[in-house]
Amino acid sequence: MRIDGRKKDQIRHIKMTRNYTKYAEGSVYIEVGDTKVLCNVSVEEKIPPFRKGTGEGWITAEYNMLPRATGNRKIRDIARLKMDGRTMEIQRLIGRALRSVVDLKALGERTLWVDCDVIQADGGTRTSSISGAFVAMVDAINKLHKNKPFKVYPIRNYLAAISVGVVNEEKLLDLCYEEDSNAKVDMNVVMTDEGSFIELQGTGEQAPFSRNELNELLELGENGIKQVIQAQKDILKMDALWIGTGGNK
Amino acid sequence: MRIDGRKKDQIRHIKMTRNYTKYAEGSVYIEVGDTKVLCNVSVEEKIPPFRKGTGEGWITAEYNMLPRATGNRKIRDIARLKMDGRTMEIQRLIGRALRSVVDLKALGERTLWVDCDVIQADGGTRTSSISGAFVAMVDAINKLHKNKPFKVYPIRNYLAAISVGVVNEEKLLDLCYEEDSNAKVDMNVVMTDEGSFIELQGTGEQAPFSRNELNELLELGENGIKQVIQAQKDILKMDALWIGTGGNK
Amino acid sequence: MRIDGRKKDQIRHIKMTRNYTKYAEGSVYIEVGDTKVLCNVSVEEKIPPFRKGTGEGWITAEYNMLPRATGNRKIRDIARLKMDGRTMEIQRLIGRALRSVVDLKALGERTLWVDCDVIQADGGTRTSSISGAFVAMVDAINKLHKNKPFKVYPIRNYLAAISVGVVNEEKLLDLCYEEDSNAKVDMNVVMTDEGSFIELQGTGEQAPFSRNELNELLELGENGIKQVIQAQKDILKMDALWIGTGGNK
Amino acid sequence: MRIDGRKKDQIRHIKMTRNYTKYAEGSVYIEVGDTKVLCNVSVEEKIPPFRKGTGEGWITAEYNMLPRATGNRKIRDIARLKMDGRTMEIQRLIGRALRSVVDLKALGERTLWVDCDVIQADGGTRTSSISGAFVAMVDAINKLHKNKPFKVYPIRNYLAAISVGVVNEEKLLDLCYEEDSNAKVDMNVVMTDEGSFIELQGTGEQAPFSRNELNELLELGENGIKQVIQAQKDILKMDALWIGTGGNK
Amino acid sequence: MRIDGRKKDQIRHIKMTRNYTKYAEGSVYIEVGDTKVLCNVSVEEKIPPFRKGTGEGWITAEYNMLPRATGNRKIRDIARLKMDGRTMEIQRLIGRALRSVVDLKALGERTLWVDCDVIQADGGTRTSSISGAFVAMVDAINKLHKNKPFKVYPIRNYLAAISVGVVNEEKLLDLCYEEDSNAKVDMNVVMTDEGSFIELQGTGEQAPFSRNELNELLELGENGIKQVIQAQKDILKMDALWIGTGGNK
Amino acid sequence: MRIDGRKKDQIRHIKMTRNYTKYAEGSVYIEVGDTKVLCNVSVEEKIPPFRKGTGEGWITAEYNMLPRATGNRKIRDIARLKMDGRTMEIQRLIGRALRSVVDLKALGERTLWVDCDVIQADGGTRTSSISGAFVAMVDAINKLHKNKPFKVYPIRNYLAAISVGVVNEEKLLDLCYEEDSNAKVDMNVVMTDEGSFIELQGTGEQAPFSRNELNELLELGENGIKQVIQAQKDILKMDALWIGTGGNK
Repeated sequence: MRIDGRKKDQIRHIKMTRNYTKYAEGSVYIEVGDTKVLCNVSVEEKIPPFRKGTGEGWITAEYNMLPRATGNRKIRDIARLKMDGRTMEIQRLIGRALRSVVDLKALGERTLWVDCDVIQADGGTRTSSISGAFVAMVDAINKLHKNKPFKVYPIRNYLAAISVGVVNEEKLLDLCYEEDSNAKVDMNVVMTDEGSFIELQGTGEQAPFSRNELNELLELGENGIKQVIQAQKDILKMDALWIGTGGNK
Repeated sequence: MRIDGRKKDQIRHIKMTRNYTKYAEGSVYIEVGDTKVLCNVSVEEKIPPFRKGTGEGWITAEYNMLPRATGNRKIRDIARLKMDGRTMEIQRLIGRALRSVVDLKALGERTLWVDCDVIQADGGTRTSSISGAFVAMVDAINKLHKNKPFKVYPIRNYLAAISVGVVNEEKLLDLCYEEDSNAKVDMNVVMTDEGSFIELQGTGEQAPFSRNELNELLELGENGIKQVIQAQKDILKMDALWIGTGGNK
Repeated sequence: MRIDGRKKDQIRHIKMTRNYTKYAEGSVYIEVGDTKVLCNVSVEEKIPPFRKGTGEGWITAEYNMLPRATGNRKIRDIARLKMDGRTMEIQRLIGRALRSVVDLKALGERTLWVDCDVIQADGGTRTSSISGAFVAMVDAINKLHKNKPFKVYPIRNYLAAISVGVVNEEKLLDLCYEEDSNAKVDMNVVMTDEGSFIELQGTGEQAPFSRNELNELLELGENGIKQVIQAQKDILKMDALWIGTGGNK
Repeated sequence: MRIDGRKKDQIRHIKMTRNYTKYAEGSVYIEVGDTKVLCNVSVEEKIPPFRKGTGEGWITAEYNMLPRATGNRKIRDIARLKMDGRTMEIQRLIGRALRSVVDLKALGERTLWVDCDVIQADGGTRTSSISGAFVAMVDAINKLHKNKPFKVYPIRNYLAAISVGVVNEEKLLDLCYEEDSNAKVDMNVVMTDEGSFIELQGTGEQAPFSRNELNELLELGENGIKQVIQAQKDILKMDALWIGTGGNK
Repeated sequence: MRIDGRKKDQIRHIKMTRNYTKYAEGSVYIEVGDTKVLCNVSVEEKIPPFRKGTGEGWITAEYNMLPRATGNRKIRDIARLKMDGRTMEIQRLIGRALRSVVDLKALGERTLWVDCDVIQADGGTRTSSISGAFVAMVDAINKLHKNKPFKVYPIRNYLAAISVGVVNEEKLLDLCYEEDSNAKVDMNVVMTDEGSFIELQGTGEQAPFSRNELNELLELGENGIKQVIQAQKDILKMDALWIGTGGNK
Repeated sequence: MRIDGRKKDQIRHIKMTRNYTKYAEGSVYIEVGDTKVLCNVSVEEKIPPFRKGTGEGWITAEYNMLPRATGNRKIRDIARLKMDGRTMEIQRLIGRALRSVVDLKALGERTLWVDCDVIQADGGTRTSSISGAFVAMVDAINKLHKNKPFKVYPIRNYLAAISVGVVNEEKLLDLCYEEDSNAKVDMNVVMTDEGSFIELQGTGEQAPFSRNELNELLELGENGIKQVIQAQKDILKMDALWIGTGGNK
């Protein structure tokens, strides 16, 4: 039995609220247990300079924790004039993950700005950000699609993320903060609905891990991902019809 | 009739959710119409260097808008490496206002960090921040008080804020964003429950205003403040018993 | 009797030197008692990006204190890589105030840069900056007007500022630094020659203030403003003929 | 046949020059094909504030590319006042990897600063940095050990890193820049001499990858790591005797 | 005849106003022709960290041009978040020069902060800063000396600076801005009253210069320095008695 | 006899390796005794904004020391968010020096970026940077010349730099770090192959110096420069044929 009563292979309760704010083209408030992240997707009708001439769009993500998302108040980046290394690492991951399931040529010359602001952090903020931002991105892209249908609908796959880890020699799925702090191995898995990996980041800072352990953790992760993607399907319902079809429904 | 159907002297619906996040010593999510601000108060058991030797505590505020709190996505301060001037002006106002109703000597050598993060902005974010942060501060101070009662309870007065302005020659109370954008005169009023002013900031950038107009606006403002303070009393109930008593109930 | 021998409703001696530096289009060195500010106005024949397409001009202000303008040496902003919050608040006020008496459409697509550099600070640096910068702005605009007359002369009103406050229960006009440090209520008043308010900023950080006190302070302020504007008229003399006429003298 | 004539499972020629600079406690110039990185390890006899009271040491890494390490000149971070996100991600990885094979308690209250400066980049700069920095760290720690033997010799394992990827449907070991630019899947593997994983980072930005592909890539990676560790043993020779023994040889 | 009617070996009129501001321990407003610099010297009773344990004091200088000291408005450093390279070069020169004539051991564990703020620039701002700051430093040190006499009076020599250059094949002394802009060779000379060099910086960016030309320029410079030091003696009068005596008058 | 066995007027052994890196248009690794600097020259086919409309090219230099180029690890500029004053001073000197021997009109509208990264510092890093960067610049310009011959070959002269100083009353040529730290007078000399001065920077921070001493130092310097230029000629050989001919060989 885990600290919050879950079984080893059980994910936390997921709740997603769509249209959480009124201005963003896509806005999802995702709660995974006590982890709460507001994922807003904005559409900008231009592309960054380094993409000029490609004819393709771009997706970029920013991640931030509110100062009191954590047990101790975290000083704001602007007060130090430096972006936190962890923050930068995470927002690069979110951007890469979302881009991997979008046909940027089909998206056209526009940028999606994905803002993941962590309201409360209890482990798994980066994976929750990816899972929530995916739904917000679907909403933003559908808004564009309804205005002026894409020739090719740009979203190719569902995308979700989950953490797994080794805590006290047990392999656990979807670690909460206390588990995460005691994990000897910590891994984040990003996958599509077809069961392929988009990103795999495993760290054994406290103790190295073997191929066997890796395999057990991936098993757990794949299982978790399926449940998260089911939650995405449940909340998106009919609005997900286009995903993976190229728009020719 | 105003754009959202209100009367000229009518404030928007106020909703305050206490204990919105689980880590902060005080945490209030305030909604004033469509304006939504998360106000977290953190207690730090030390004081800033410039207060050393005074034997007094300190209260400091930080204000920030999430990038998509507004119609157009606002670039984060850290991306520009500069804090926005408006942001700095507002957070100085919030800090000053809260300090004005607290006996810093009674508070003792500790700092209250007040974080006001705007989730959605529809006018009046600075006044909503003050009104909500006040309640969060009461919660944080009561938490201290319950652990180890203050000799003198430090909060002397209720404190709330509201905006007033002149729009199309009409004096209006509690401006929403669209009204605010068209206001010729714009004023923020911060007052205590005893009807005294803590701060008064009036700007006639579009058109100067007369003593008479000022008086009419202050009338409106005083009225609005009373309603906001009533909302604070309704939500705080028994937890507000100490305010203004010095703790000798 | 006040610390420097003045009466309660007496302003300090004002001295303004026009054309203080040889390069700026308008350059006024204003001395209000021991407070000394160099106000330079520069004309740039382009407008900031956010004004593009409006056909209007812009006025922006920068305020700065030399490191030893004060009793203790103040570290330069560039050494901390951050602009001081107070500085930002003040320069926003100066810019807003000057814009309020200028017809930006009449000014045309150019920017006035107003630099207020405090050489010596003895209270009232922000109000002195506004009063001095106004005269420098008149000189800069007249230089443009003489080269190529405006269709509509852009300055609509005289503009001046003064501080008032409550010190030891006395209402005082034009506070020097020592008075300001002991003030329970501190207010800055910006007005036109027609007696209307442009900006009103009152703070009762040490003690709240009542409507009655506010009225007494405004009375004092209005009186002070009149004297400052008289000083502006005295120094500008014939060069002020256009103000408020739209240029059709 | 690969672009540089290698077989699919063949690593590039590795050359390590110890004591490359005369001041650093450990200094290794590692060349992996045309990728050249100078790895300097400095010993500082104090620990960062967040480690105070642990009785343990710390290892921190900084990574940087010289402006012309690449085909196009890269602007220096200081010119933009921002550390590059990729740079931050890499230096966090290097630090984590090195810490994972060091007993920080045995190291004692000192900090190892690991500087990896890329002189020329042709793919695999992060993995080469780890492999070279490990040798430099051995030299730095041995210098300490010779002066005053550790009770427990702090290095527990050899550590090396290598990249693998999928290019044109082929699984390749140790990608050069041109291969890396065309890789659909890109993975960095950090392992010990006991064949356990320290870090695994795989990204399928261009195309997702399956469990089978992952397994094939890991196979390749394990093989590559063995060769890199052999190169480390060859260069360290007798100086590696203590590794993993705790010092009780 | 030069542009302003001077002879080739003639310096501009020098005016120094002591006690220009009321707070600084030494405050000199120096005017050299149309170049105007405010030189304030502040005494801080502590030393920078890198001087700890030396038992010696320190002198550090900051130089800055007001935005409109020049023909075109110069953007403030804080707006770019970077200190200008020229600024940094100059303030390092000023600090080095002043330190060279002060016995830092005799000064004791305190820091002199030298602020040179250029109000108007017409060539020679760095040399005028040195010449003016020297006098301000004498005033600041004398203030200390009068309070509590130094065992050894710390100022060993007079110090002044002047520019020389080659303009249209003519060797000129004390270049104004227009001459400086057309100079093929530009040299700044810092010397003591004993005719020794403290600093010599010559640049032939437009054209190299020969030993003969160097000698002619140095001749001119030495002559100019003598006149500047005479001006310093004239303004300091009896307050300069201690200089070079070690205090044993 | 000097610390490293040299005679007073003897320079250290110079070794220059051309084409040290494979990407830069010019790349020279210069070793002067134990001082080692990598000088890369990059060609960019555009000019900075302030050169627009001149029809001329530009040369700009950046200088940086790797953190462990020195005995104590130097914190990176980006970690402090400020460029070091000494660094800025040096890179301005390098840029000025190189520009002085290049016909910028002949170079055409392109920028040469000169990066001098110090791998190991043992005195004379700025002079070694100039001497090495000159050779790298020749290579970069020749690469352009071979592609598309310049009408006028832009390099007019050889250029080299050396340091001289007074240590223990001895005048020494080409100071190593230990000599430099004990120098009372320190001078850097930049000259052409025709024996003219490009830049002369002498500092007597520890003790002033006389005209006679200056002359002796310049004698030493001129001699040293000749040897450095001979080393440049030896390494460039036939590739230097164009220098000073304007290209009409």
